[in-house]
Amino acid sequence: MADRLTTEVRAKGRLEAFSDGVFAIAITLLVLDLVVPHHAGGRLLSELFRERPVYLAYFISFMSIGIVWIEHSALTEALERVDAGFLRLNLLLLLFVGFLPYPARVMQEYLSLIEPQHGGQRTAVAFFGMILFLMSLMLLVLGKYAEREGLFGGDTVEERTAERRVTYKLAPSLIFYALASVLGLIQPYVGLVLYFVIGVYLLLPVRTVRGWLGRGKS
Amino acid sequence: MADRLTTEVRAKGRLEAFSDGVFAIAITLLVLDLVVPHHAGGRLLSELFRERPVYLAYFISFMSIGIVWIEHSALTEALERVDAGFLRLNLLLLLFVGFLPYPARVMQEYLSLIEPQHGGQRTAVAFFGMILFLMSLMLLVLGKYAEREGLFGGDTVEERTAERRVTYKLAPSLIFYALASVLGLIQPYVGLVLYFVIGVYLLLPVRTVRGWLGRGKS
Amino acid sequence: MADRLTTEVRAKGRLEAFSDGVFAIAITLLVLDLVVPHHAGGRLLSELFRERPVYLAYFISFMSIGIVWIEHSALTEALERVDAGFLRLNLLLLLFVGFLPYPARVMQEYLSLIEPQHGGQRTAVAFFGMILFLMSLMLLVLGKYAEREGLFGGDTVEERTAERRVTYKLAPSLIFYALASVLGLIQPYVGLVLYFVIGVYLLLPVRTVRGWLGRGKS
Amino acid sequence: MADRLTTEVRAKGRLEAFSDGVFAIAITLLVLDLVVPHHAGGRLLSELFRERPVYLAYFISFMSIGIVWIEHSALTEALERVDAGFLRLNLLLLLFVGFLPYPARVMQEYLSLIEPQHGGQRTAVAFFGMILFLMSLMLLVLGKYAEREGLFGGDTVEERTAERRVTYKLAPSLIFYALASVLGLIQPYVGLVLYFVIGVYLLLPVRTVRGWLGRGKS
Repeated sequence: MADRLTTEVRAKGRLEAFSDGVFAIAITLLVLDLVVPHHAGGRLLSELFRERPVYLAYFISFMSIGIVWIEHSALTEALERVDAGFLRLNLLLLLFVGFLPYPARVMQEYLSLIEPQHGGQRTAVAFFGMILFLMSLMLLVLGKYAEREGLFGGDTVEERTAERRVTYKLAPSLIFYALASVLGLIQPYVGLVLYFVIGVYLLLPVRTVRGWLGRGKS
Repeated sequence: MADRLTTEVRAKGRLEAFSDGVFAIAITLLVLDLVVPHHAGGRLLSELFRERPVYLAYFISFMSIGIVWIEHSALTEALERVDAGFLRLNLLLLLFVGFLPYPARVMQEYLSLIEPQHGGQRTAVAFFGMILFLMSLMLLVLGKYAEREGLFGGDTVEERTAERRVTYKLAPSLIFYALASVLGLIQPYVGLVLYFVIGVYLLLPVRTVRGWLGRGKS
Repeated sequence: MADRLTTEVRAKGRLEAFSDGVFAIAITLLVLDLVVPHHAGGRLLSELFRERPVYLAYFISFMSIGIVWIEHSALTEALERVDAGFLRLNLLLLLFVGFLPYPARVMQEYLSLIEPQHGGQRTAVAFFGMILFLMSLMLLVLGKYAEREGLFGGDTVEERTAERRVTYKLAPSLIFYALASVLGLIQPYVGLVLYFVIGVYLLLPVRTVRGWLGRGKS
Repeated sequence: MADRLTTEVRAKGRLEAFSDGVFAIAITLLVLDLVVPHHAGGRLLSELFRERPVYLAYFISFMSIGIVWIEHSALTEALERVDAGFLRLNLLLLLFVGFLPYPARVMQEYLSLIEPQHGGQRTAVAFFGMILFLMSLMLLVLGKYAEREGLFGGDTVEERTAERRVTYKLAPSLIFYALASVLGLIQPYVGLVLYFVIGVYLLLPVRTVRGWLGRGKS
């Protein structure tokens, strides 16, 4: 029995190592999508400056993966062990994390002013938002699964924090991402700015968010 | 002697870290092969939609590497130590894992409808299946080698689980992959769908598979 | 309380694993920017030789990320725990680390003699220097934050070493990077050589630097 | 004092994690250099088959990085601690590891028969061999440095094994790599085959090599 526990604790260690790897690679691959302005000569500065929307898209993509990493790491820290189902659901989360650089690239290409792609911006921004939505959804599913299967250690501080994160931050963010995607279909830049705002909100520590909501229960 | 054991346990730790790295990178590099539809303008949505076979190929590649990672992680967890031979065989497994993005890229390019490459789909699908076969084969070889060299700790739960995985899942999957590759040579999409089905089957926990086979021995 | 400490220590472990991943990937992605001389035939050697400025740029980029990794690793080793704020500031540092391959690519393209891009070298070199500056700045901010929030364990050898690093090396390097960037705007190769010199200076162990400054206090 | 030791042991842990990351990424990035035959249609199989020299080059590159990883991991396992000098020399080793995909890409392009680049093969093969030589040299330097600075724990089994590796395998391999590079300048395929043979020799466990040399001292 003790053996079994040790194995499960170690399985958790490898799940974290593998997930950290995928998160770190996905977040760093984003830079490959930034296009170098060719033959700009003395106009290089202004060419780089015109790429503002692309940098914003890069920043949002980076921030979004970073947030999911922070939440994922907070979740698995609160876990006592992982099981076969958790491993497989986690793989599904990583599928969306590893896929995000693609909609990010599509969006960057259609927002780029170096090689302008008029039209298609709405689709690109909504496509990106959809993957953000699915990433958050999978995180929520992982949290709910861990709760149902009793993978948390007990009623510790960490578990309660993890629950609060789900209730006060992840669940609402799903609605916000869905909304932002739909708005992106109408006004792409509005969608983009909303992704940014949701990201900033998710980056705020839970404590702050609860404070805003005016709740005092510990 | 105690020293030697400590070293071998630590050697295992680095083998896991290095392998996790290669798995994580290979699985995340797959996204680089997805092609952004250029100058699609307002037709971007339909262009993205037409790329369905490419997304399926991406999903299968991701799932296949994910499965090998899960099996590899289950195998090394059951090990008590690794030796020089295991290290080298493991490198051979990683060779195929690190190589998989190439046949995946070939297959995606020949399945893509944005830049259609009529013909060659059969070869591409069979080539991909051959590497899936070799990956599974190396995993089986690793498991058999560990058994023969007594790298498992003893007759623990983990070892028996590892053995069962080999007997009930990996060994049959080899035959299935070989079959799917041959069928892919005749009907590429049949091969593709079979890779998907094998993947889903491999993702099911061992317990479930044994249940299907109607065996009750613990 | 003991639980809480354990969690914070483990949070530190994952922060290190994720950061090591981003550092390792960013430093290794740099190689993708090196352009293979096409159709050079027998002139391949001379074509490769002409690329000297590009190799220098590669070397400087590699060294700069390597330095930040060494300093980051020295900093987090001295920490007893990390908190939510540290996690988020660390993400901001990683943003610049992950972004560096982009200005490195811009600079390499505009310094390359295979596909010469006359003009724009000044902008490219200064852009690169600006990111180096921001990377160092974020490292300094992280160190100051950790000090203010009492994340160090106490008045140990490590903490004092970490403080000394900040005072004798990181803070001055900020001024040097700012200066080098400005000079790069006037004479690109002067900027490039200065980045190299600053890198070598930062690679020298703290002890040596303090010796030069003629201070003997331990 | 105990504190200091703990820190140094942990510094070793991060050095290993970061190095494993760079090794894993460099070895996996090699796959990006494999070119997909475009518009091959029904001739895809023969087009892929003609790429044999490129696959050989890929295999040799993969094997070479794999070997250096195995030797590096054996070396650092034998270490009790690392110091500032070791950290910096290790960064220099990683510079060559991270750079290897570039000469590998040059070599693959000039060996490729899809887009033939007549001439330049000699330079490409010798360039690749030079980096292999420098990688092995840095590994030797790291080993010698660790010995001189007393970073090994004492006269344990691991240390003596590490010493033997240096004496019986790494040192001779330097001469072989230099020879193979020179021969590659005259006959590129001879150089390529020699890199392969040296790789196989380095992959053999030390014990075997010592047996061949007819020495029995333990």
